[in-house]
Amino acid sequence: MRYAIVGTGGIGGYYGAQLAKAGKEVHFLLRSDYETVRDNGLQIDSVDGSYHLDHINAYNNTEDMPKCDVVIVALKTTANGRLQRLLTPLLHKDTLVLLIQNGIGVEEDVQKIFPETYLAAGLAFICTAKTAPGIINHQAYGSITIGNYSCPKQELVNSLIADLADAGVQASDVEYLEARWKKAVWNMPFNGMTVALETTTASLLANPSTRRLIEDMMMEVVGGARACGCKTVDEEFVKKMIDITLVMPPYKPSMKLDHDFNRPMEIDYIYSRPIADAKKHGFHMAKLEMLEAELRFIESVSRERD
Amino acid sequence: MRYAIVGTGGIGGYYGAQLAKAGKEVHFLLRSDYETVRDNGLQIDSVDGSYHLDHINAYNNTEDMPKCDVVIVALKTTANGRLQRLLTPLLHKDTLVLLIQNGIGVEEDVQKIFPETYLAAGLAFICTAKTAPGIINHQAYGSITIGNYSCPKQELVNSLIADLADAGVQASDVEYLEARWKKAVWNMPFNGMTVALETTTASLLANPSTRRLIEDMMMEVVGGARACGCKTVDEEFVKKMIDITLVMPPYKPSMKLDHDFNRPMEIDYIYSRPIADAKKHGFHMAKLEMLEAELRFIESVSRERD
Repeated sequence: MRYAIVGTGGIGGYYGAQLAKAGKEVHFLLRSDYETVRDNGLQIDSVDGSYHLDHINAYNNTEDMPKCDVVIVALKTTANGRLQRLLTPLLHKDTLVLLIQNGIGVEEDVQKIFPETYLAAGLAFICTAKTAPGIINHQAYGSITIGNYSCPKQELVNSLIADLADAGVQASDVEYLEARWKKAVWNMPFNGMTVALETTTASLLANPSTRRLIEDMMMEVVGGARACGCKTVDEEFVKKMIDITLVMPPYKPSMKLDHDFNRPMEIDYIYSRPIADAKKHGFHMAKLEMLEAELRFIESVSRERD
Repeated sequence: MRYAIVGTGGIGGYYGAQLAKAGKEVHFLLRSDYETVRDNGLQIDSVDGSYHLDHINAYNNTEDMPKCDVVIVALKTTANGRLQRLLTPLLHKDTLVLLIQNGIGVEEDVQKIFPETYLAAGLAFICTAKTAPGIINHQAYGSITIGNYSCPKQELVNSLIADLADAGVQASDVEYLEARWKKAVWNMPFNGMTVALETTTASLLANPSTRRLIEDMMMEVVGGARACGCKTVDEEFVKKMIDITLVMPPYKPSMKLDHDFNRPMEIDYIYSRPIADAKKHGFHMAKLEMLEAELRFIESVSRERD
């Protein structure tokens, strides 16, 4: 199978490099780092062992890339307005597009642009970041869950999972809604609250008032998920997410990093969409709706400063 | 009638000075400004005309003050732990204590300390601040509504209102619950949100997301008020509060000023108490509860810095 990586940042760079290291054919789309990576390759500084890939199929335009069997999209959702132009040259009639992106509703919207294309959600459980042009720092974890959204050929999803396993990446297949909503249980409270209170996951859980608030918000996500038809998340899962976060080092989620580095925040797919979907199904996420409003305000203040 | 002013800041200083200027007998309790005011009097820089009071009955201890007919308490509620000691020397059996303080539940708690004392709530609609020792800056408005909590002698409340009128202060008598909850409709959203988002009333209303949030929160206060038995607040009143605020200059409410000057915030009476009272009566203020948690977090960060 031939792979395209659209967005060679911390996530796309890491999974693409793992696949390439395992001998798969991988084509990387880059933007600002294009020349560096074309000339010098990719450096992966990983907790599981560092390595360097000298020769990388590097591109700065998808029109120069071959059609691929699997396209891994690892851009921020704030860039999804560019997907129509970016993906079109890469797709043949059986291409599987794996969207490793945050939030709820991403596949629904991308499917509107590419009605015939096979889509799957990829939920990465990983701490990784691009620290310099061509240098990926993989700090912890690395597994990925895949939720098949619209691929009628399950063998394609299975082949992807097998290739990832060959590449040392623990991948598993999960029911689509469950994959998306389980991630949202953690993402919705922590991403926004670390921005709103300029803090880390650990500090939010150390204060009894915000710990209760985080738990309340997680239960709002559970309520929204169940209203939207995902019955596999429950209070037990909330407890598990709290326990996992309590043993993590103080952590800044992606939205906090985006805000700190003055990048636009993924408010649409992490907040507005799941809140609207839940409301459509009769469930009101009151506190997350308030957080959404606070984030909209904070974002507008950031943009005014630009 | 003999008056005591307990807490000679922007509010107590202004109303006390107005009464003294009108020839009433007023005794002022001061703390850090005691010597300055004793020696130099009080300067009122007012939008309605500035004046200076050369001779002030100034004290730094209520034990040196005479018993009074009306005691105006204009301290922050965060100082209410000192009321038992402060007020005891000032009270005779018919003293009326007017609590010009923020929040819900103040009278209930003070009544527990002084079960026989006549209490009333004072809700000041005023922009005033102490800008230097002995100098009060009265910027706008000045009216006061009085809600009788436990004074069986209505003529006493009437005399107070008449004295205030003599002193150029528009005072009116309002049903107790209505007085407290109407003020809460404005106070609960704006005090905390200007702190949480480090902004002003005007900016909160200029952004459509936070404007809707402020309106939602005001409706939560209306819901809480009605659950607690105050049926005179409604959606119309919310609209009126929004309209009034829209024509105000960008404003920092008292909690925002407290936070900016690193004073403790009045979270207990402005948030925790009304939220708990409403919950007791079956109404859940979800967004205000979230704001309370954010403020507790922000307060704990401030205290850690001390």
